[in-house]
Parts: sequence; C-alpha cells; structure tokens
Amino acid sequence: MNSFDFEEERIKQEITRLCAKRVFLQMPEGLKPEAPRLAKIVEKAGALPIVSADPCYGACDLATAEAESLDVDLIIHFGHAKLLKHEKIPTLYIETRATLTVEAAVIAAVPLLAGYSRIGLATTVQHVQAIDTVREILVRAGKTIEVGDTTRLPYPGQVVGCDFGNVKSIAKDVDAFLFIGGGKFHALGIALATSKPTIIADPYGGLAYSVYEEAKKIIKQRYASIAEASQAKTFGVLISLKPGQKHLEQALAVKETIEKMEKNVCLFAVREILPDVLAEFPTVDAFVNTACPRISLDEAAKFNKPVLTVQEFRVVSGESSWENMLKNGLFEN
Amino acid sequence: MNSFDFEEERIKQEITRLCAKRVFLQMPEGLKPEAPRLAKIVEKAGALPIVSADPCYGACDLATAEAESLDVDLIIHFGHAKLLKHEKIPTLYIETRATLTVEAAVIAAVPLLAGYSRIGLATTVQHVQAIDTVREILVRAGKTIEVGDTTRLPYPGQVVGCDFGNVKSIAKDVDAFLFIGGGKFHALGIALATSKPTIIADPYGGLAYSVYEEAKKIIKQRYASIAEASQAKTFGVLISLKPGQKHLEQALAVKETIEKMEKNVCLFAVREILPDVLAEFPTVDAFVNTACPRISLDEAAKFNKPVLTVQEFRVVSGESSWENMLKNGLFEN
Repeated sequence: MNSFDFEEERIKQEITRLCAKRVFLQMPEGLKPEAPRLAKIVEKAGALPIVSADPCYGACDLATAEAESLDVDLIIHFGHAKLLKHEKIPTLYIETRATLTVEAAVIAAVPLLAGYSRIGLATTVQHVQAIDTVREILVRAGKTIEVGDTTRLPYPGQVVGCDFGNVKSIAKDVDAFLFIGGGKFHALGIALATSKPTIIADPYGGLAYSVYEEAKKIIKQRYASIAEASQAKTFGVLISLKPGQKHLEQALAVKETIEKMEKNVCLFAVREILPDVLAEFPTVDAFVNTACPRISLDEAAKFNKPVLTVQEFRVVSGESSWENMLKNGLFEN
Repeated sequence: MNSFDFEEERIKQEITRLCAKRVFLQMPEGLKPEAPRLAKIVEKAGALPIVSADPCYGACDLATAEAESLDVDLIIHFGHAKLLKHEKIPTLYIETRATLTVEAAVIAAVPLLAGYSRIGLATTVQHVQAIDTVREILVRAGKTIEVGDTTRLPYPGQVVGCDFGNVKSIAKDVDAFLFIGGGKFHALGIALATSKPTIIADPYGGLAYSVYEEAKKIIKQRYASIAEASQAKTFGVLISLKPGQKHLEQALAVKETIEKMEKNVCLFAVREILPDVLAEFPTVDAFVNTACPRISLDEAAKFNKPVLTVQEFRVVSGESSWENMLKNGLFEN
C-alpha cells in the first residue's frame, strides 16, 4: 500500500482543528487492509477511531447515518472525491492519490491504440495528476488527445462508477478511449456509456488491455434482460437506502408507469442489492433498480431475475427505444 | 403461508387510526415471499407501502433509521414480538401466530423424551398459544412439565435468538427441553444456553428430532476458537449498527481489556457480520463480536478467523474460565 498517499499529516491536522474526539473511517474494499494502521494514526492524534467494515462503493455511499448513530464528530472517507453537496457530519475526503508512475502502462497501451488517431483520456481520482504525462506520451506517438470536463466532477477527465459525463462529452470527437487505472470496472463503464473502443493502461501491473469485447457481451446480455422483463407480470422497484443512491421520487414515477401498464408492482427499500436478497421475493418477475445502475450492468450473471436500470425499464415501458438508449449510454444517473 | 395469522384487519385499523400515508413493512426471511401481498393490503388501506428487503433477524433489528430516511409514518414489523423499549417511529408488531396444530409433532416427540421425566417447554412467539395443549399431551404421557417465565419476554416459555432466560430459569429443575417450532436455530440456542438434551417438535413437518449432538459439536468448536484466539496478536472488536444489537460501551470495555493485555486492537462498526466483510481485514487475527452472539456460535464454520462472543473473550482475557462460561451458558446479552 506504499503506492498511495494517505495524507497522514492532513488527517492529524483536521482532528486537531475540529477537536474531534471520535472519528469514523470509511474506505472501499481495496483500501480496507490499511484500516488498522490508519486507525492507529487517528488514535495517536487523540481521537477514538471506529472503522466502518461495511461495503463502500463510492462517495455516494457516505456512512452519515451510521456515524451519527455512533456519536462521531468527524468522518474520514478514503479513496473517493467529494460527491454529496452537503454532509450532515464534518467529512474529510482523502482521495488516496496513487504515487506510482504510469509511463510503463501507457507505453504498453500504444500498440493497442494503433488504428485510432483521436484518443480520449479518462481516469479515477487516484491518477488525475498523471493526465498531462499520459498526454505527452501519446502526442509523441502521433495521437490527438481530448480530455472532457463537464465540471460536474472535481477533475477534468475524471470518471466515477456512475458518472461518465466527462467521456460522453467528447465521445463524438474521439476514435477510442484510454483509461488509466486498475481493474475493469471504470473502463467498462466508459465503453458502456460511449460504445467506443476502450483500452486500460494499468499502472499497478504496468500493462494494457482492451475491455471492448467484454462491454459488447454486457450489451447483448442487457438486450436479453429487457426482453425477459417485457414478459413480467409483477415488478419490484428497488429504492436504495444509501444517501447518495436514494432516488425515491424516481421510484415512485416508475411505480406509476407500471400501474398504467396494468402490471403488479411493489416498492422495496434495500441497502445491499445482493442475489440472495432479491431471491426472497419469488413472486416478483423483474426488478427496476433506482440505486446504482452498475449493479444491473456488471452483476447481471449473479441474479436469476432481470434487474433493469431505469433507462432499460423505459425501453420496456415504451417511453424509449433500445437504439435510443444505446445512443444516450446505458446509464445516466 | 395460510399457516400464519397476519392480522390483516388490525393492519388496516392501525393505518386508519394513525392516518398513515407511508408504511414500511419489515419481516424475517421466512415471511418475505408474502411481502407483495401484504403491501397490497396496506395500499388498499390508503397508504403507500415500502417493503424492507434487507435481512431481518429479530425485533432487535427494527429498521427505524431506514424508515426515517424514507419519511415513513408507520413501521409494521412481522414475525417478532416487541423487544425495544421505545421506537422512534410508531411501530405495529404483527406476531404472525401459527394457525396449524401442534399435536402430531408433539406425539412424535414423546418417544424421544423416554428416559426424561421432567420436561421444560419452550417455543417462539408463533406458537406460544399452543403451550397448554403441549402440556396436556405430555402430562398424559406421564411427564412433569415446567414453563419458565422471567417476565423479560412477553410470554411464558418464549425464547428469542439471544434471550433464553425462560429456559435457563428452570434448567436445574428439568431433565430435557421440548421446543415447539420450525428450524434448529432456537432449539440449538436452548441446548447451548442450558447444556440440556433438547428435542424439537416441528409442527410444520409434523415430526420431532433431537439437536443435542449438534449442540455438543458447536461447544467443541467454540473451545477450538477460544484456543486459537488466545494466540492472536491483533484483535478486531465488532460493534453492530443495528439499533437493538449496538453495544458500544461493551465494545469500549473490551478494547480497554485488550490494551491491558498489550495486544493490538481496532474497533469496527458493521451492519451485517459476513465472512466476506471480515476477510477484508487480513491483519486482524481474531474478532470479538458485541453484536448478536448467535453469529459467533452458529456460523463459525463460515469464518476463517475466530469470532468470539464477549463471554468467550472473557475466557481468553482470564476474566472467566471455560467451565464457568459453560455453567452460565454460552451467551447472555
């Protein structure tokens, strides 16, 4: 974990500044092994550390209710940039920037970008500081570079699991995307949101590969799920209990549409949308997911019923078409 | 599901009485298939129903924070009797009494009780109304019957997953226990809390069987877990985020004891204590669970690290002994 900057000095300063006595530490799965070490830093700064062990998939998932119930006076959220406009409890975001170099991975990506001249760059908050380095390498390799910035996220070129505005805004001007970062999750999101060839430059492994074929497979699977859901007699509409994923009004609108279609509908509130959780409701034929759309897209194989995004449901209800949805991207929260 | 009384009239009356506009329905896994039908009843009574899809293991698990975040004005909690002293949101408990007869199962249990003359009766809230029938059958079979009542739970002879006071209070006066109900969970709790032979009379299957050998296996496994935890260098102390399972002060006391033992310790707050959740913290050698003790006892095989109850931890710390803990029962929350 020496490859990340945990900004330990800033943690200590913030605890001192707020005279925090009890601090809640929240982080995504990849950073959880560091939790006991980070808790020690908080303790040395004079506060009682409590680590959130629950899954954490983004800054949308900020554990404010949990922190309140534990009488915490500061949340330290690691691994994501600020997303919510207001926090009920003082929150320090530690973006955990990567400290390793990206050169080797980007050089490995150059051959995979042969045939594409206009390249869009994208990355997570961990690597936003590397964008200029990546640009220089690719310009030297004869590419034209675009970096989107809708200003909705803190950094140009930044993507998060459910917001690909920065890549969508430049999709028409590029032939392919290069994503700098680890794992397939964000790169698949780019390919699904833009339908463009997407290459990963992975600085952790110093290697590069394409996720374009995998994205095409997901799109085929979504078509099948929509077809199956069109036959449903009873729908379940899922409402997330996570503060940044709770779209109650949207769920109520979907319920109304289903009622107009003269189908049965039931609203379900849920924290973690897991296969076992949905399997408890055997009379529901298909679910509409108003929480994180990535659960529908990336985890379909794990569910034994269709779990549609709201965009996909609009194809079932006739409010949109498959072609139109693909053009707009498979999700837009 | 015709074998349960969902008290549909009382549901309608309570919605009308409170002028409830939005109702949250919560139920344990076994009753979840009924959720869409129960939601329809709420809707017909004039309120918007939202079903909690999250796991629910008891009235300790009342979803008040979730209900608050959805602006709900009534919670209907199915399958458990009231446990919390105060609810932040008006709550209707529907105990879902079983409507089927217990005779066949109890008659099937009589041969398994041969050799025991003094029998303690126990059951869940679903079958408390059957206690007198069971008593009559067993008296006719020549048994002496005891039914414990510490008044901590609403009904004589009642047990819940973590409170076996009613059986413990009569354990010294009986040779064996007969539990009336489905599943092994509560009967295993009786055997673990009292170390007495325990027979299940299962009215759903109309059959009877013993869980005594299985309880003995669990006790052996607990001995092994305590021995393994005694070697731990780093402990994690688990604090539940469920309102009826949150024992923060107890967790802080355990942390202090671990520090006096000159071992490392880190506090973890957690909603669902699952193997995957604990596996994210590889540097922790053993966990102390201040949430529901049954997670430690019944699910040990699923975890790859010891997850001790607080009573078991006191054996590790030297505050108690294995023999003493067995005498008092493996858990007492």
